[in-house]
Amino acid sequence: MYSYSHRNILDTLQFSKEDLDFLIKKSKKMHSLQESGDAFGILKGKLLASLFFEASTRTRLSFETAMERLGGRLVSTVGFQFSSISKGETLYDTMKMIEGYADIAVIRHPVEGSSRIAAGAVSIPVINAGDGAGQHPTQALLDLYTIISEKGTLDGLSIAFIGDLKYGRTIHSLINLLRHYSVHLYLISPEELRLPDTYKKYLSGFPMTWEETTDIKAVWDSDVAYVTRIQEERFADHREYERLKDIYKVNKELVLASKKQTTILHPLPRVNELSTDVDDLPNAAYFRQAKYGVVVRMALLCLSLGVDF
Amino acid sequence: MYSYSHRNILDTLQFSKEDLDFLIKKSKKMHSLQESGDAFGILKGKLLASLFFEASTRTRLSFETAMERLGGRLVSTVGFQFSSISKGETLYDTMKMIEGYADIAVIRHPVEGSSRIAAGAVSIPVINAGDGAGQHPTQALLDLYTIISEKGTLDGLSIAFIGDLKYGRTIHSLINLLRHYSVHLYLISPEELRLPDTYKKYLSGFPMTWEETTDIKAVWDSDVAYVTRIQEERFADHREYERLKDIYKVNKELVLASKKQTTILHPLPRVNELSTDVDDLPNAAYFRQAKYGVVVRMALLCLSLGVDF
Amino acid sequence: MYSYSHRNILDTLQFSKEDLDFLIKKSKKMHSLQESGDAFGILKGKLLASLFFEASTRTRLSFETAMERLGGRLVSTVGFQFSSISKGETLYDTMKMIEGYADIAVIRHPVEGSSRIAAGAVSIPVINAGDGAGQHPTQALLDLYTIISEKGTLDGLSIAFIGDLKYGRTIHSLINLLRHYSVHLYLISPEELRLPDTYKKYLSGFPMTWEETTDIKAVWDSDVAYVTRIQEERFADHREYERLKDIYKVNKELVLASKKQTTILHPLPRVNELSTDVDDLPNAAYFRQAKYGVVVRMALLCLSLGVDF
Repeated sequence: MYSYSHRNILDTLQFSKEDLDFLIKKSKKMHSLQESGDAFGILKGKLLASLFFEASTRTRLSFETAMERLGGRLVSTVGFQFSSISKGETLYDTMKMIEGYADIAVIRHPVEGSSRIAAGAVSIPVINAGDGAGQHPTQALLDLYTIISEKGTLDGLSIAFIGDLKYGRTIHSLINLLRHYSVHLYLISPEELRLPDTYKKYLSGFPMTWEETTDIKAVWDSDVAYVTRIQEERFADHREYERLKDIYKVNKELVLASKKQTTILHPLPRVNELSTDVDDLPNAAYFRQAKYGVVVRMALLCLSLGVDF
Repeated sequence: MYSYSHRNILDTLQFSKEDLDFLIKKSKKMHSLQESGDAFGILKGKLLASLFFEASTRTRLSFETAMERLGGRLVSTVGFQFSSISKGETLYDTMKMIEGYADIAVIRHPVEGSSRIAAGAVSIPVINAGDGAGQHPTQALLDLYTIISEKGTLDGLSIAFIGDLKYGRTIHSLINLLRHYSVHLYLISPEELRLPDTYKKYLSGFPMTWEETTDIKAVWDSDVAYVTRIQEERFADHREYERLKDIYKVNKELVLASKKQTTILHPLPRVNELSTDVDDLPNAAYFRQAKYGVVVRMALLCLSLGVDF
Repeated sequence: MYSYSHRNILDTLQFSKEDLDFLIKKSKKMHSLQESGDAFGILKGKLLASLFFEASTRTRLSFETAMERLGGRLVSTVGFQFSSISKGETLYDTMKMIEGYADIAVIRHPVEGSSRIAAGAVSIPVINAGDGAGQHPTQALLDLYTIISEKGTLDGLSIAFIGDLKYGRTIHSLINLLRHYSVHLYLISPEELRLPDTYKKYLSGFPMTWEETTDIKAVWDSDVAYVTRIQEERFADHREYERLKDIYKVNKELVLASKKQTTILHPLPRVNELSTDVDDLPNAAYFRQAKYGVVVRMALLCLSLGVDF
């Protein structure tokens, strides 16, 4: 019999197909509890430490909203204010202190692998809210939940990923979840920004199929298009960024030309790769993602704390 | 029959005389609920997004206190920490995200007109907590409530405004409310800092009368004196600031020489324009303003959320 | 009959032996309430203003955790965000505003004596969370409670202080409390960093005895060793810091060579003066200090607010 066993959320590779099915089911349940006003109070008396060693307001507000919506409490810290760090304190020591304060910790950190170090230091559950070039597992889970909520199912879907597949952390994380499903991926990027081999090695032996292309018209064969920003901060050579930044543009004209009712996703923030003229289309699901993200994180907070709902 | 209809609080010009009478009545009610300890719990389960795109600790703490005093919850963000903004995100996109999180938003922004853009983006209520050179309507409402609480009525009062009437946002906003009442204004400023014509055009056709003067002795004929700081940051020419900054000084001697029991207000922070020797006078109401501000904002949060009290 | 009478917590010198006995007893009581889950709700409806004029995340999170664990509410501000200050506002004016918002204030400030100024300005209780080179009384109280919790008693203990006894604020504060007990201190430091005479004058006429030494081996005769960091920021001459910073190193080998079961304390953050190989020893109490700190501050918040438990 299946039993969910993840206290820490560190990596998308930690989840089996059964885990994902369970998480989707629980997110749906939380979604309806939240809609009916019955979620408030589930985490009464529980305390979340929201530890953002780098600013990421979108993610921080989502987690903090999730905790507040459950009636829990939180202490919060952002960025350079974490003064002990500048005095030379290690992450290990910081976490041992936090263990004495809170029931659960969410950690965002600029250094890859730091959430695993944090989780190893303490007996309270730790949720990775993004660590450098590493994982952002809750973003991937909310993306998965968004697709299912918008399309009803995953099985048989064609999903296009567009943009920076080389550095796009959210894409790397989401593909690790989608591999468990019978979906087909169009990986649309310029040659220079293709999905690195290091990520491809996790994709064999799974029902998911995929193909690479440079042609954005693959969107027209896709049920879902996941658009991403070309991230300036990832490029050592600024001229390369300038050359590539506007290579793809998803706009209303492109979306309306699709053979399918293509649902448009974007992890946000967007710059020019996704036109505002798409916003009014019913297919534009990227603003609804924010709301889905809250209920997924509400579910995860409860599950990690071992509080049933 | 009168029905209050403002979900968004964006501008002082949006309020009719009946609106103001209603808001004063509700603020009084909230004041007594707060004093008796019965306000806590009124906004149980409601979530405020406190969005300060520029730091304004005084205003932020006032709104956050208001929400906490009602037993509501909040998520909060300040200034440069709003990392998505530096990645190029528009206010529109930020607000669409916030709409998925919170039940109501308070927004402070350095750019005039941004609160209106924010409100236009979302279906949740938006309260303007100051947008650049624009409006600061809740400050004006709390100033109005302060005068009424201190003097018992507005009708027949003489009210002096002293200092920077050109750039003083709080003055511009408050005058828009006072125009509905039978009051007389003394606008006391140096020639260079007189009330701009653009604000004067809203004042005709209302019961309020006003006259301009450079002489601070007009305070002696005033029931209320509203003192403001000459704001260094508004001057392009620093020498002009140096020449004007200490032009008026409200001190104990001036206040005691008044023919009336002149009540002294100041939006704070003060520098040299208001001496600390005034603090001990019973007429010094500027510290009580902080407390009045909390109950006014408590009332506004409830009204915008449609929660009765 | 004894009656505890401290609303403000400003200084360790304010406490008598009876006060300390009472605070230890109440901290124990709060500790068991917290462990059993019965502390939540004791401060329902109360509002804490957490005012950190300089960043000190460790201390801020501890106080905010304490307030949240009691079911209270808080408004919080950190460092340069305190924008009114940069506009020239005095601490007095800031506190008069806060008085209109909150039921109690915790204040951290870079300038010695500022917590006393803050407390003098307002009618709400003020707790000093560290003011410059001055006092940090709640740190001293939690250190005291940590020793008693770890050793069962204070009477008859030998306690070593190691490191920077000249600038170490936490040491100065803790010694003021320990003087009331029959303990013996080994003050271990290089000549340049000995306890200043100004602190020694408070130690005569009390049961505590003490001796100074430069030899770290005094740890082997100690029941408790309180290790402190040599603080780089306190040295005007950087070469002096470089020469002294690694003069003492408490490591596993040293601790295991002790004739007693020496309990190791450290106010954290640590750098090199305390090796991580000590962490696994049962004697290493410095991470448990964080948890003790929360219950001590929970007790203090209730006592200052006059809320019984």
